[in-house]
Amino acid sequence: MAEQLRAIRTRQTILSAAAKIFEEHGYQAATISQILTEAGVTKGALYFHFHSKEDLAQGVLAEQDQRIVVPVRPSKVQEIVDVVMLQAHRLQTDPMVRAGVRLTMDQLAQSLDRSGPFLRWGEVGHELLEQAQAQGELLPHISPSETADVIVGSFAGIQSMSQAVCEYRDLVGRVSALMRHVLPSAVVPSVLASLDLSESRGATVYAEAVKAAGMQDLVDAAG
Amino acid sequence: MAEQLRAIRTRQTILSAAAKIFEEHGYQAATISQILTEAGVTKGALYFHFHSKEDLAQGVLAEQDQRIVVPVRPSKVQEIVDVVMLQAHRLQTDPMVRAGVRLTMDQLAQSLDRSGPFLRWGEVGHELLEQAQAQGELLPHISPSETADVIVGSFAGIQSMSQAVCEYRDLVGRVSALMRHVLPSAVVPSVLASLDLSESRGATVYAEAVKAAGMQDLVDAAG
Repeated sequence: MAEQLRAIRTRQTILSAAAKIFEEHGYQAATISQILTEAGVTKGALYFHFHSKEDLAQGVLAEQDQRIVVPVRPSKVQEIVDVVMLQAHRLQTDPMVRAGVRLTMDQLAQSLDRSGPFLRWGEVGHELLEQAQAQGELLPHISPSETADVIVGSFAGIQSMSQAVCEYRDLVGRVSALMRHVLPSAVVPSVLASLDLSESRGATVYAEAVKAAGMQDLVDAAG
Repeated sequence: MAEQLRAIRTRQTILSAAAKIFEEHGYQAATISQILTEAGVTKGALYFHFHSKEDLAQGVLAEQDQRIVVPVRPSKVQEIVDVVMLQAHRLQTDPMVRAGVRLTMDQLAQSLDRSGPFLRWGEVGHELLEQAQAQGELLPHISPSETADVIVGSFAGIQSMSQAVCEYRDLVGRVSALMRHVLPSAVVPSVLASLDLSESRGATVYAEAVKAAGMQDLVDAAG
């Protein structure tokens, strides 16, 4: 058990180092030996967890999906809003999420398959919007996969614009504006009227999710 | 006159070479000597037009704004749709536009001010939407600058997603979907009903604009 915990911690140390190096140098220019130096682990330890630079990058990319989960909501439209607003909040506050998003948006990393996060986020959105459709939250003409792709693609650009213009300071405001522009075209009015699209939503959901995750850790340790 | 034309052509040759080198190596790694070799011009000729690598990058960034102009439309909402759809068409077909957009989205080019294109496109959208508002095309609660920023930011991400997923093959479809999702929240129904948001709109506008630009060249030569 202690050994397993140590392995998890080493993996996390390596991923944090990789995130930092990719962010500083870009995917193309970054080297495994820079990541080794930054992480302060042995070559053996690194190759136990990751087989290549691409593997390390995919590890960083996957981190943005996994670590924090939005609580289930009765309204699936609110749940997708919460996923989006939580991601905006984490971009403002978590260097690992930022590194993953920058890798995703690195159009010069041509040897790296960057489609993964777009497709995975698209799937998350698609699933939630299908549930929303099943319980009558969407307007009749809406295609859940098309609307999910519009939200995922638009979010990617809104964050990039906010980063370029002011290093993410206005991000939650811009994302809230995106939601107010896209959702009225897709959601029935009675659901729209009950949504929380406020700028502080991301921070609220984050606090809630971390609390839920903390309880989950206790459950895991007991198991 | 012949000398002036030659200077314009040399500048264009250098910009095309710079676009290619930035696209291959990224802003950070690209060097002026690579651009010199690619362009096949003398050091003197290059420095006559551009003072630094940043200057070259700003030249590439500016190209996406200037070369082709959308014809004036009675509906200013249609005009902004035409600007967006034309840009999607040019991304699919023009390497210089592609290079400019990639530089804009290069979150690793930290020493390069990439806010310019976002702010310039935001200004274009803002102005058109203010005209749309003045002639009663927008819903009463809409803020032209906020809606313009949503469109510009979203477009940037939609193009990035299309590039990552399928090298721009589905771009016009995705951009048409974006317009169908954003405009109903901002535009009065009678205007909405008369908009052309079809996937072929960009190609149509391009043909029209090139024809108009051709005539403009003749006018300039005569002057």
